[in-house]
Amino acid sequence: MIKDFVKQALPEDDEMKAKLKEERAHLSGLQMKIKEAGLPVMVLFEGWSAAGKGAVIGKVIRNIDPRFFKVATMDREPSDEEKRYPFLYRYIKEIPEAGKFRLFDTCWMEEVVDGVLEETLDEDTYKKRVHSINIIERQLIDNGYLVIKFFFHISKKEQKKRLDELKESKDTSWRVDKDDLLQNKHYDRCLEVFDRYLGDTNQSRSPWYIIDATNKKWAELQVLQFLNQGIEVALKNHSLNVPILQNTFPMEKIGKLSDISLDDKRLSDSDYDAELESLQKELKDLGNKVYRKKIPVIIAYEGWDAAGKGGNIKRITEALDPRDYVVEPIASPEPHEKARHYLWRFWTRLPKTGHITIFDRTWYGRVMVERLEGFCSENDWQRAYNEINEFEKELVDWGAVIIKFWVQIDKDTQLARFTDRQNTPEKQWKITDEDWRNREKWDLYETAIDEMIEKTSTAFAPWYVLESVDKKYARIKALKIVIEQIKKRL
Amino acid sequence: MIKDFVKQALPEDDEMKAKLKEERAHLSGLQMKIKEAGLPVMVLFEGWSAAGKGAVIGKVIRNIDPRFFKVATMDREPSDEEKRYPFLYRYIKEIPEAGKFRLFDTCWMEEVVDGVLEETLDEDTYKKRVHSINIIERQLIDNGYLVIKFFFHISKKEQKKRLDELKESKDTSWRVDKDDLLQNKHYDRCLEVFDRYLGDTNQSRSPWYIIDATNKKWAELQVLQFLNQGIEVALKNHSLNVPILQNTFPMEKIGKLSDISLDDKRLSDSDYDAELESLQKELKDLGNKVYRKKIPVIIAYEGWDAAGKGGNIKRITEALDPRDYVVEPIASPEPHEKARHYLWRFWTRLPKTGHITIFDRTWYGRVMVERLEGFCSENDWQRAYNEINEFEKELVDWGAVIIKFWVQIDKDTQLARFTDRQNTPEKQWKITDEDWRNREKWDLYETAIDEMIEKTSTAFAPWYVLESVDKKYARIKALKIVIEQIKKRL
Repeated sequence: MIKDFVKQALPEDDEMKAKLKEERAHLSGLQMKIKEAGLPVMVLFEGWSAAGKGAVIGKVIRNIDPRFFKVATMDREPSDEEKRYPFLYRYIKEIPEAGKFRLFDTCWMEEVVDGVLEETLDEDTYKKRVHSINIIERQLIDNGYLVIKFFFHISKKEQKKRLDELKESKDTSWRVDKDDLLQNKHYDRCLEVFDRYLGDTNQSRSPWYIIDATNKKWAELQVLQFLNQGIEVALKNHSLNVPILQNTFPMEKIGKLSDISLDDKRLSDSDYDAELESLQKELKDLGNKVYRKKIPVIIAYEGWDAAGKGGNIKRITEALDPRDYVVEPIASPEPHEKARHYLWRFWTRLPKTGHITIFDRTWYGRVMVERLEGFCSENDWQRAYNEINEFEKELVDWGAVIIKFWVQIDKDTQLARFTDRQNTPEKQWKITDEDWRNREKWDLYETAIDEMIEKTSTAFAPWYVLESVDKKYARIKALKIVIEQIKKRL
Repeated sequence: MIKDFVKQALPEDDEMKAKLKEERAHLSGLQMKIKEAGLPVMVLFEGWSAAGKGAVIGKVIRNIDPRFFKVATMDREPSDEEKRYPFLYRYIKEIPEAGKFRLFDTCWMEEVVDGVLEETLDEDTYKKRVHSINIIERQLIDNGYLVIKFFFHISKKEQKKRLDELKESKDTSWRVDKDDLLQNKHYDRCLEVFDRYLGDTNQSRSPWYIIDATNKKWAELQVLQFLNQGIEVALKNHSLNVPILQNTFPMEKIGKLSDISLDDKRLSDSDYDAELESLQKELKDLGNKVYRKKIPVIIAYEGWDAAGKGGNIKRITEALDPRDYVVEPIASPEPHEKARHYLWRFWTRLPKTGHITIFDRTWYGRVMVERLEGFCSENDWQRAYNEINEFEKELVDWGAVIIKFWVQIDKDTQLARFTDRQNTPEKQWKITDEDWRNREKWDLYETAIDEMIEKTSTAFAPWYVLESVDKKYARIKALKIVIEQIKKRL
């Protein structure tokens, strides 16, 4: 792509000035429209060292109210802390919320191409990274994001000239580091690697724009033109529907909820006590091993209201060192969460390596409550099965153990527990009108859950049903599965 | 893609039947919605020999009224006649019109993968083909087409079994040809080539769906499900706006119309006569060479009303053998043309190799009259510059000579000619109310034309301005340019 790039003729001075003025005013006028439309705008600046990305970013943001944008300056290398999360984590953390700009002063490209150039990233990992990037960019766009990608291009000679100038002055010499000089020295090799990456990630809805950065005004003008154009196009797209991709993941067939027998899944008190003690002891040891071997563990709980999730989770956490795990109760998203990609609040709650996160309700809200209450469009939740599978695959590839529990009871059991809660003063806080309303939609939920389990029970992250009419049975089963799955990874 | 493909579990018999019934009815119900929405639906069936594409196509169409669909059965190899057109020509000819289905029993994939397997397509040409395919699929989708792509997959063993069965019966043995047997013999090599192609053409808005074709009912069900889902999604997308891609072609800078001096571009009658005769003689010889060397030539005329296009074209055609050229006068599109991609009526009017087509008005109507009269959306015409550059690049890569003329006069000259036409009985047919209305929009047109020339004057197909206040001057200049450009290619 860069190799085939053809410089266009620069406008004359007067024309440049007039156009710059016009495009700056255009962007300034667009910011309120972006706000009103709730469009999140992600602008990725990549390119050669000393190509002037920073200067152009500085110019661009002058036209935007400070409340509406942030610049994310990403370090070339993740910090040690960031290295304990998936590759994409530190970038996804920074995605903008609806109605706002986030300008990335380098984004996921730089880390990948650096890895290739420094030979810390082998061919397979490179391909995996590109795959992950293409998926996340597609997911963001499918979920209403505008993603604009700029590559700032200058020639080897121009780069050399700029680096020399920077080095010469006391005020700027600190800005030139070894990597910059190496890049210029190995310009042709870098060009190969950059060019391949650009080609590998040039998607029809998030194409690359190559910016001829030899002239600074011209670079600014090009950026403004592409940016304004991209925003205008995105603003006109209301509730875009996108293709539902084929499931490309291996699945585990699990039956329908109605086929699961519940009443025979019981444990006596004595059996329960004995098993609980020995299993919790085993899990405790495993928790330590997980910590030392730096394995991230994700345990996801979904289930009917009053199915016994809380008590079940408690039996897991009792066995763990409080420094090593966290329970994340998931309610309706906060405004700042709702304003972002629906998986963002789960991405940002991931455990770091060696830690365990237990989600009390999860990202599957998208295909249950959000589906049934109309909080997202049909296209949104239909697409979500694949997006969720992709998300979980990303985590598994990172090295995580993922365990997904569906805590199952029947309708009568729920009624009995609701009534008990209602009639027991110290349990009344546990029951709300909403629980009763949800209960009325039991059949709709059951259909949605069956579909969810069918479409997201992948071989790498299958669902486990915990029969919980007898809560003791469900707790022991959960412990056994957690132990088994962790053991498999050790 | 095929290599990573994971077969999903087949539904039980009863479930399969119920689902098939449901999806068939669904498709049947969708056809009127497609009609009403004017959605053109292109379904591409590719896959292994004997995978049962034809049988499934037969099943699918049973649910659609014969007025609403056609099946395009493409031969593995283009005919000798088709080989005289660009690679994509025979497929583009077949694209559906708005509101109708076109099912392709193999499409552009087969020709390309066959070429690779038979080693008639080298690596560079393969890449070019893939590039062309990605562009045309993207263009179709950007212009409102639904493009659904199926790859029918069976194992080597299954294919062998089916081919053996076909061979054994007298009724079907003719259906098995050498290519089918070779494919089975070299299954793994074919798989490599197919897989690469699928990966290379898997675009986010026109993804591949791999159909597990081992079971025929299951294959039908999968196709129906993906098809119905794809249609539902496409139906919900009204007037989709798509990114305006960066111009990636080398440009020739040509000034604004207002900077062109006209009055000094004159020829005396005697000079004109002498030059005309010798140039036409030269062009005649070149016309013969073009024919023998099988070079396709495209001459495109645009210009102001009454600028003298007709007379200019006549001076070219006078020099040519009537069997070798055709003049295509382009008016508003007919309904069946309007119902397709706007470049379709030009694709289907291309000259074959060795022939010359002269377009009297062209595809540039998109960015002039269609833009100014609001016959297409702003996103449509803004996108068209790049689409047209891509179109012309495709033709140049095929080997065509493209010459684009803008016939230029000033406003006063037009008025004088209009008045003359109005006042001269035998010329009155040449002048209409529309001409006068267009004249009122002169300034708007001038802005659009300046933009058109700026954005589509590529190095491989630049615009040539013919100063035509003196028509004789313009004719001689046109002849010289045509001669020069053809000579360059010989």
